[in-house]
Amino acid sequence: MPHISVPDELPGIVGLLAFKPETAATISAFTQQLLRGPSSLTPGEREIIAAVVSRRNECQFCARSHTAAAEHVTGDRDLVDAVIRDPAAAPVSEKLRALLAVAAKVQGSGLDVTDDDIAAVRAAGASDEDLHDTVLVAAAFCMYNRYVDGLAANTPTDPAIYELIGRDLADNGYRQPARSASAGAGEA
Amino acid sequence: MPHISVPDELPGIVGLLAFKPETAATISAFTQQLLRGPSSLTPGEREIIAAVVSRRNECQFCARSHTAAAEHVTGDRDLVDAVIRDPAAAPVSEKLRALLAVAAKVQGSGLDVTDDDIAAVRAAGASDEDLHDTVLVAAAFCMYNRYVDGLAANTPTDPAIYELIGRDLADNGYRQPARSASAGAGEA
Repeated sequence: MPHISVPDELPGIVGLLAFKPETAATISAFTQQLLRGPSSLTPGEREIIAAVVSRRNECQFCARSHTAAAEHVTGDRDLVDAVIRDPAAAPVSEKLRALLAVAAKVQGSGLDVTDDDIAAVRAAGASDEDLHDTVLVAAAFCMYNRYVDGLAANTPTDPAIYELIGRDLADNGYRQPARSASAGAGEA
Repeated sequence: MPHISVPDELPGIVGLLAFKPETAATISAFTQQLLRGPSSLTPGEREIIAAVVSRRNECQFCARSHTAAAEHVTGDRDLVDAVIRDPAAAPVSEKLRALLAVAAKVQGSGLDVTDDDIAAVRAAGASDEDLHDTVLVAAAFCMYNRYVDGLAANTPTDPAIYELIGRDLADNGYRQPARSASAGAGEA
C-alpha cells in the first residue's frame, strides 16, 4: 500500500503524479523532452537505458514499464529481452554497449564513471550528446525509481498492465494524462 | 575536466545545462517548482534536504551549492551547519528530523524506506504532502548529483563561488539563466 493517499486504480508514478498536479506538469514536460525530444540517441535506445537502470535499482514498476516501452518503441522484443538479461552480451551496437556500461556506473554513483569508461565510449564513436543524454537518462531513472519505491507506489503484478503501459508510452510519450480527456478541446 | 565540452567558466550543472538548452528549459522549470513552488515544506527545509542528500552522495558541487542556498534562504548559518554535520542531532523540528531520516533512506534506495520510518514521520506530524515532497526532493538530488558527477562537471574549490551561487539561488531560484539578460524585457 502506498505511503500516501493516491487513487487505487492508478499504477506506479501515475498515481503519485495525480497526488500533486503541479509536479506532474513539470516532471512530465521534462520526461517528454528527455525520452522523446531531440537527441542523438533514438527513443528506443533511451528506453533501453531506462529499463536497464530501473532493473539495477530493482524498481519493479519502472523496470517492467520501460522494458515494455522499449519493446513497443523498437518493435524488437527479442533484442530488448537480450539487453535486459545481459547488456554486455546483447547484439546491440558497440556504441550502445559502451553507453550502457556508463549508465550502469551512473546508477551506482556519478563518481564511479572513470576516464577508461569515457575512452571506451569515445572509441565506440559516441558523441558529446550521446554521453550527455546517456548520463542524464540514467540519472533521471535514479530519481523516478526512488520516487516510486520511496512512496511504495502501486505496483501491478499482471503482465497485461505493463503491455498496456508500454504501448501507451510508445504511442503517446510522457505528456500529461489529461491530454486524452481535454487536450483536444484545449488545442482546437 | 568535464567529460563533454562545456564552457570553462560555468560551474557544475550550469555548464551542463548550457550544453543542451532544451534540457535546461524543462529541468529548470521542474526544479523551480520542486524547490520554490507550492509545498507544505518551506524553501529552507527543501534546500536542507537537498544539501543533506547531496552530501551523502558525495557530490561536492551540489552539496556546497545547496548548503550555501539553505544558509541564505533560512538566514541561519549555524542551524544549517549543524544539520549538515549531523541531521539526527541538529536543533530542527521533530517533523524535519523524521523527514531527513526518510530522505537519507531514499538516497540509498526507495526500497529502504520502511513502515517504521513512515510511522515515525506520521508521529512527528508530517502530512502526505510533507512526505511526498521530501521523497521527491531526495530522489531528484540523486539525479542532479549523478548528472554533475557522471559528466565530471566543473567543480570550483573557492568558497566565494559557493557564496555567490547560494545567494543567487536564494534571490532568483532556478529559473533559466537567460532571465537576467532578457526576462525584464519579456515581462514588461
